[in-house]
Amino acid sequence: MRALVFDDTLRFDAHHPDPKPGPDDALLHVLRAGICATDLEIVRGYLGFRGVPGHEFVARVIEGPPPLRGRRVVAEINCVCGRCDLCTAGLSTHCRRRTVVGISGRDGAFAEMLAVPASNCRVLPDEIGDEEAVFVEPLAAAMQVLRQVKVEPSMRVAVVGTGRLGLLVAQVLARTGCALLAVGRNPLTLGRLDRGGIRTATAAEVPRRQDHDVVVECTGSAEGLPLALSLVRPRGTVIVKTTLAERPPVDLAPLVINEVTLLGSRCGPFDDAIAALARREIEVASMVSRAFSLSQGLAAFESAADPRNVKVLLKPDA
Amino acid sequence: MRALVFDDTLRFDAHHPDPKPGPDDALLHVLRAGICATDLEIVRGYLGFRGVPGHEFVARVIEGPPPLRGRRVVAEINCVCGRCDLCTAGLSTHCRRRTVVGISGRDGAFAEMLAVPASNCRVLPDEIGDEEAVFVEPLAAAMQVLRQVKVEPSMRVAVVGTGRLGLLVAQVLARTGCALLAVGRNPLTLGRLDRGGIRTATAAEVPRRQDHDVVVECTGSAEGLPLALSLVRPRGTVIVKTTLAERPPVDLAPLVINEVTLLGSRCGPFDDAIAALARREIEVASMVSRAFSLSQGLAAFESAADPRNVKVLLKPDA
Repeated sequence: MRALVFDDTLRFDAHHPDPKPGPDDALLHVLRAGICATDLEIVRGYLGFRGVPGHEFVARVIEGPPPLRGRRVVAEINCVCGRCDLCTAGLSTHCRRRTVVGISGRDGAFAEMLAVPASNCRVLPDEIGDEEAVFVEPLAAAMQVLRQVKVEPSMRVAVVGTGRLGLLVAQVLARTGCALLAVGRNPLTLGRLDRGGIRTATAAEVPRRQDHDVVVECTGSAEGLPLALSLVRPRGTVIVKTTLAERPPVDLAPLVINEVTLLGSRCGPFDDAIAALARREIEVASMVSRAFSLSQGLAAFESAADPRNVKVLLKPDA
Repeated sequence: MRALVFDDTLRFDAHHPDPKPGPDDALLHVLRAGICATDLEIVRGYLGFRGVPGHEFVARVIEGPPPLRGRRVVAEINCVCGRCDLCTAGLSTHCRRRTVVGISGRDGAFAEMLAVPASNCRVLPDEIGDEEAVFVEPLAAAMQVLRQVKVEPSMRVAVVGTGRLGLLVAQVLARTGCALLAVGRNPLTLGRLDRGGIRTATAAEVPRRQDHDVVVECTGSAEGLPLALSLVRPRGTVIVKTTLAERPPVDLAPLVINEVTLLGSRCGPFDDAIAALARREIEVASMVSRAFSLSQGLAAFESAADPRNVKVLLKPDA
């Protein structure tokens, strides 16, 4: 099959071996896949991943249990053992033996096909189009924020970073009625938020007054955490979404001095994200900037790194 | 008066101006003061402090409101306005206009005398000796851990760092009945803990299995946080006590991937610490390694940085 493969460099492989589904797996035909910040970090060496990246996708089931066959699905990306101490403690997304689709130990969706555990598949309602469905995984990650902190209308909340994930987090937070500020550097995405009625500021102009109850850091850059720590109030909460291949110098003294809570935040509830998209509570279709075939995959990655684009998709059938 | 002064370098000043107490201040005669890791960082440039350092101390009130006069006291180190948004929100230890005794904007206790707001003073019961009383401030900081996380006997807890603060945190945690492990590199303090019935390991020998519910990081070094993140379980909690003058490179990806909670932790409840010392629940007297006069202050700082010593005191009367 055709696939994008990362092994020190990213390359297009027109004759990549087909996936070999295990007994509990479903074999999926990828309809659309999205390139996210984690993918851009992976091709810079983050986590030492080798193989086919891609973990935001919508697919049709080719082989699998009868109720799934032929259905259009998204899939939870953590593939777990169900038996280790963490799985049995209800923390299966942190399974000690887990693989993660396109991120760790398992090929992902930047290919014509992939295999995932059948139990990871979630059948999509017809209301959600293919391009929208690609956003289920990142929207779930955005909605996780509300599972980690109770956001109330009286609260001052800032989203730092207005890239792909920041735009989703901002939309999710805006629905709580809190006093929301989105801080970014990209005039394009700041303009989108402005038009959506969300207050915005650039990092240069935002007053660093340590007066926000909650700050969600999703810049994907080393500057994000120091900025977040300059915005959050003493005893406030910073939710950290950014993962980096590099190890930047960090001044954590403000964390201690201001007794801030830092919450690492990764994946989120797929069912909530599917329901929000089906009910049109979150708008994602207009975020798609461009779509590329797999053979144009390198151009697609360049395009995804270009701040003039919001979401870049791959279309394995094109 | 005699004082130790830091202005780019630390020096002994035999003729330092006496403190000038304001209308709400008490004037204190210092009996004993302790040198802690924050002081060692301050003389490396941490926080840009200039003046007389020293914030762990016991003193006798020379001038002040009648109920305090002549009494032996310790003093809360945050001097606050009582009127800003944080004070009125019950977060007065984070007062926007605060000064901090010997740390920020206000002279401290490495001198014959100092002035502090009278309302910061806490009268000591006779059961607590002068040398023990110096531990009220750091013990309060150690006890703050139990206000931030509910530690139960079923929990696995690690203390990383077995210096002055780590020894106190370990004693505080041991009293909860949790499964406690103290991780350090100093054979002297590890031996103390062993003899106290607390399980110990060196950083080299501790299995980095990410299987502790709570990790308290009080190493005072840049290696502490990465070690803590290698010990805490997914969705577990790391309490960070270390503040550094430097900005070390930090890999925060494990924080996000494992959805860890990081809690910055600074000062703590003086009343709890005084009560614990008066009831002999925490043993501190044996932690005092050496005591120096103010004129020997530079030697005292060197001594405090020497891992063969636990607590080094200054005796302004000597």
